Amino acid sequence: MKHNAILVAGPSMRPEGWRKRLAAALPDSPVHVLGESFDKASIGYAATWWHPPGSLSDLPNLKAIFSLGAGVDHVFVDPQLPAVPVARVVDPDLTQRMTEWTVLHVLLHHRQQRLYDRQQQDKLWQEDHEQPAAKDVRVGVMGMGELGADAAEKLKFLGFDVAGWSTTRKSLPGIRSFAGAGERDAFLARTDILVVLMPHTPATHGIINAELLSKLAKNGRLGGPFLVNAGRGGLQVEADILAALDAGTLKGASLDVFETEPLPADSPLWTHPKVYVSPHNAAISDHDAISVFIARQIERLEAGGKLEHVVSRDKGY
Amino acid sequence: MKHNAILVAGPSMRPEGWRKRLAAALPDSPVHVLGESFDKASIGYAATWWHPPGSLSDLPNLKAIFSLGAGVDHVFVDPQLPAVPVARVVDPDLTQRMTEWTVLHVLLHHRQQRLYDRQQQDKLWQEDHEQPAAKDVRVGVMGMGELGADAAEKLKFLGFDVAGWSTTRKSLPGIRSFAGAGERDAFLARTDILVVLMPHTPATHGIINAELLSKLAKNGRLGGPFLVNAGRGGLQVEADILAALDAGTLKGASLDVFETEPLPADSPLWTHPKVYVSPHNAAISDHDAISVFIARQIERLEAGGKLEHVVSRDKGY
Repeated sequence: MKHNAILVAGPSMRPEGWRKRLAAALPDSPVHVLGESFDKASIGYAATWWHPPGSLSDLPNLKAIFSLGAGVDHVFVDPQLPAVPVARVVDPDLTQRMTEWTVLHVLLHHRQQRLYDRQQQDKLWQEDHEQPAAKDVRVGVMGMGELGADAAEKLKFLGFDVAGWSTTRKSLPGIRSFAGAGERDAFLARTDILVVLMPHTPATHGIINAELLSKLAKNGRLGGPFLVNAGRGGLQVEADILAALDAGTLKGASLDVFETEPLPADSPLWTHPKVYVSPHNAAISDHDAISVFIARQIERLEAGGKLEHVVSRDKGY
Repeated sequence: MKHNAILVAGPSMRPEGWRKRLAAALPDSPVHVLGESFDKASIGYAATWWHPPGSLSDLPNLKAIFSLGAGVDHVFVDPQLPAVPVARVVDPDLTQRMTEWTVLHVLLHHRQQRLYDRQQQDKLWQEDHEQPAAKDVRVGVMGMGELGADAAEKLKFLGFDVAGWSTTRKSLPGIRSFAGAGERDAFLARTDILVVLMPHTPATHGIINAELLSKLAKNGRLGGPFLVNAGRGGLQVEADILAALDAGTLKGASLDVFETEPLPADSPLWTHPKVYVSPHNAAISDHDAISVFIARQIERLEAGGKLEHVVSRDKGY
């Protein structure tokens, strides 16, 4: 008996759509959806998005777990997670979309769009506002994986003065790399616009807090600092962000992600004049592309090859 | 006697500032401002921005006219313009700023920011809007000079499907070039977002009119078309733009320039829900950089060299 069936385990991800797409991409593998009846011994692979904890624990022939979207934090919250490799999805389409959103929001702050929106509402023609050029504005990207590196490269090409911070040192042309805890404060001190594209792990939970925000550059030409978070809501402490905005030590924020999603109606973020709220759709995944990506990985494994983009359990990304 | 004095002729451009900057950049050349008393025979160069027509006609030793900002349309409106070379300003800083604004406004339409602004005002969390990727959105840049080519290149790098239209064919990697009147309709038919960065000349006056707008793509993934004009107000027929917006054949517009500036308070563009108005400051010139640029040109000429970036009087750019 072949143990190559796929179990789709992610109630919030419209499992029937994934069943169809995975079946089309991988005609030889039966696809089952969590909740229906199937032979547990047949399951070789799980494709998950916030699967119910414990729901993968009794699959005797499970060989690998795939995330159906960006990030694997939702996989590791399961205390009964089986000890098989977990693979990230790497989708150029998702990366591009995330960069579109990131560049848009960096430019919204850099070019003071809220000011011009207000002027337009007031029918006010005033053109002589102080406006530094991109080269005089320092963008700092926290998290220099696939997403962070792509955003950094494109912001650099637009002319911004870009640096990145990551656990290990990176080498990207024209982009200064800060690495590790020892260089974090220096990175923050030269950052006018902080872009957060890092994984959410126990080590990064709540990292965007009062202490971090207080270390961002205060002397920038743009009159910042500004925060742009398209990573995960669990990275940020919203009370601290609001306090910094109200104190004026943070000049603006764009948030695609929140501690609680959907963002509760009583959150002051909705109406804060310095905040852009977007409904966690900076990068909608291309489900077809992800299905094909997972199919190619399974084919490679079944042919005796190696799983790619395996996540470190220690690091959580 | 040396004929190397500079006449600053541009009342709206704060002439005293230009006098100081040009004098600092070119210590050997006296600098005069139109309206004060000076020896007309001493003037070798004019640095102008909307100079009063006729005000340069009686300078017997004038050798060249420099524009103090992007575009030379303001020079050629003078029917008594002396028959000396007119030079454009080429300033990398101005080009970069223009591209920042252009990329911001292309992304504002592409990523449907007005929709998300409204959702935020309504505290509405809705994430499942149709959103094509940049690669499936066709940007068309009209005018592929310094400014158009730079914007096209950066939009291409962000992932958009970019083409350019210009009088002569251009060769830029990955950017399809349409040239001349014969290829204009084909260019418009494949354009979801039209970016206008062309010179304002008698031939291009009012070119953005009902006929042109009706030829833009109607079948795009983004549900466009959209218009982004950072060129000159004289290129556009605002009544036609408003009619197309109200008819729904144009889905949105970003305008930094207008037929009359400042934009009159009674213009419906101010309050139109599909329009971004900005007060002709997409690219504020760096006056120091322009002064140095003009100084280097004068030094080259005085040393027997050749004037660069000379405008064609026939074409007007």
